[in-house]
Amino acid sequence: MIPRLSLNQATTTQWTVPQAVAGCVSAGVAGIGLWRAPVAEYGLDRTAKLVRDAGLTVTSLCRGGFFADPDAINDNRRAIEEAATLGTGILILVCGGMAPGSRDIDGARQHVVDSIAELAPYAQDHGVQLSIEPLHPMFCADRSVVSTLDQAVDMASRFPASQVGVCVDTYHIWWDPNVYRAIERAGDRISIFQVCDWITPLPEGVLLGRGMMGDGCIELRRLREAVDATGYEGPIEVEIFNQTIWNAPGQTVLTRVVRTFQDHVLPDDRSA
Amino acid sequence: MIPRLSLNQATTTQWTVPQAVAGCVSAGVAGIGLWRAPVAEYGLDRTAKLVRDAGLTVTSLCRGGFFADPDAINDNRRAIEEAATLGTGILILVCGGMAPGSRDIDGARQHVVDSIAELAPYAQDHGVQLSIEPLHPMFCADRSVVSTLDQAVDMASRFPASQVGVCVDTYHIWWDPNVYRAIERAGDRISIFQVCDWITPLPEGVLLGRGMMGDGCIELRRLREAVDATGYEGPIEVEIFNQTIWNAPGQTVLTRVVRTFQDHVLPDDRSA
Repeated sequence: MIPRLSLNQATTTQWTVPQAVAGCVSAGVAGIGLWRAPVAEYGLDRTAKLVRDAGLTVTSLCRGGFFADPDAINDNRRAIEEAATLGTGILILVCGGMAPGSRDIDGARQHVVDSIAELAPYAQDHGVQLSIEPLHPMFCADRSVVSTLDQAVDMASRFPASQVGVCVDTYHIWWDPNVYRAIERAGDRISIFQVCDWITPLPEGVLLGRGMMGDGCIELRRLREAVDATGYEGPIEVEIFNQTIWNAPGQTVLTRVVRTFQDHVLPDDRSA
Repeated sequence: MIPRLSLNQATTTQWTVPQAVAGCVSAGVAGIGLWRAPVAEYGLDRTAKLVRDAGLTVTSLCRGGFFADPDAINDNRRAIEEAATLGTGILILVCGGMAPGSRDIDGARQHVVDSIAELAPYAQDHGVQLSIEPLHPMFCADRSVVSTLDQAVDMASRFPASQVGVCVDTYHIWWDPNVYRAIERAGDRISIFQVCDWITPLPEGVLLGRGMMGDGCIELRRLREAVDATGYEGPIEVEIFNQTIWNAPGQTVLTRVVRTFQDHVLPDDRSA
């Protein structure tokens, strides 16, 4: 077993759900982060049974959020139900950007809080914690008006920790001059920790620009240590959106994930 | 005269220095922000005489910084001298990213402070204030490890205000949940205020993705009011890096700059 490693399935887009599950089992990866679309394609109940039978832990479901969408509340309710069916206690929220044509960033941020307030009790009833993921500020207009970890913690802190936590992803927060204080402050609000690296130049649209661990400039091990120092002992998901990596066979990608995770995220002294 | 408007010449790249100067005079634009390369091409002393004779104010020189470069200190000394020759009291610093292959972001940030410490007295001797420009966090790895206005103010505050200030550019800071508090805190450290808009999708490399005022989602007037509330009464530079705008004739661009500046940055009630 590779300690703590979870494969977020958005890293291996060539793999179907059963291929990803089989790949994890064979590589000694005990966790998997699932996405709603491929799960729906394979079938929700079928996926739940598959991962359970394989002995894998579903470390999170991606994703709820996008609260600027008109049907967001209903859609998020369905996402909560799906998370519960899949046996994961964590639904990651990508909270959405600003409505087209809008300049009201304060309004958009308030709308995120209001939407979470509407959903949080429903999530708790299903044994699911909503995990607010701050996205890199370059996504503020179109993907997430939640832009820093501190801001995500501010939002989460309005709710009981059993209902709302935060998702810490190295890609989104590494640049923040305040990042280590913010991680410490996040404390037991941290629901899930995700890693990948920052590489340049960014591609058009900037969505698929993430790097494999070790290929970029993020101090991954130091950030992992800071997250651990809060008492977090949970899984660490590898989530990489990158067209070149997406073009590669799932097995090739996972083999590299396992190696670079050990080299750049886990403790240097493997016996420790 | 268009109140407070200054044309940063990086907005009208089709124009030579004399064309930009003539364009400003004819459009009633009293200020111009200059860049070192086109100034060098036309000639430093010749540019200084040209803008003086035209009655224009040089509102800033772009740019010093890039402290990760080996020859940075010498190059920044030359930039300071050029600013003095051009008659501007402000040299904008784009502080540089991380050295290739490095993951030491704290070290890179400390190196920025150390470099400014070495240059600040030399700048003061030349009547030039160094203006630290925080760049959007998407540039952290390759252009500026100074990523928020608060961080820039922290750095500037280590020096006398006569030596080091900050450059407030709407493009770089609009997303910051802390932006209005940071502007208030920046106070009389604000050397210069720059505007343009945020549009998506970002192009490859993300450098040339800026929008004309009004085309994006930034609350430009609100940010201008916040800067004004600190007591800042200086020029407002329009600086837009955008390939489509760069492809247009200088006169077309400046005409649009003047109109959108009045519509989206200046007070709504023009008689006020």
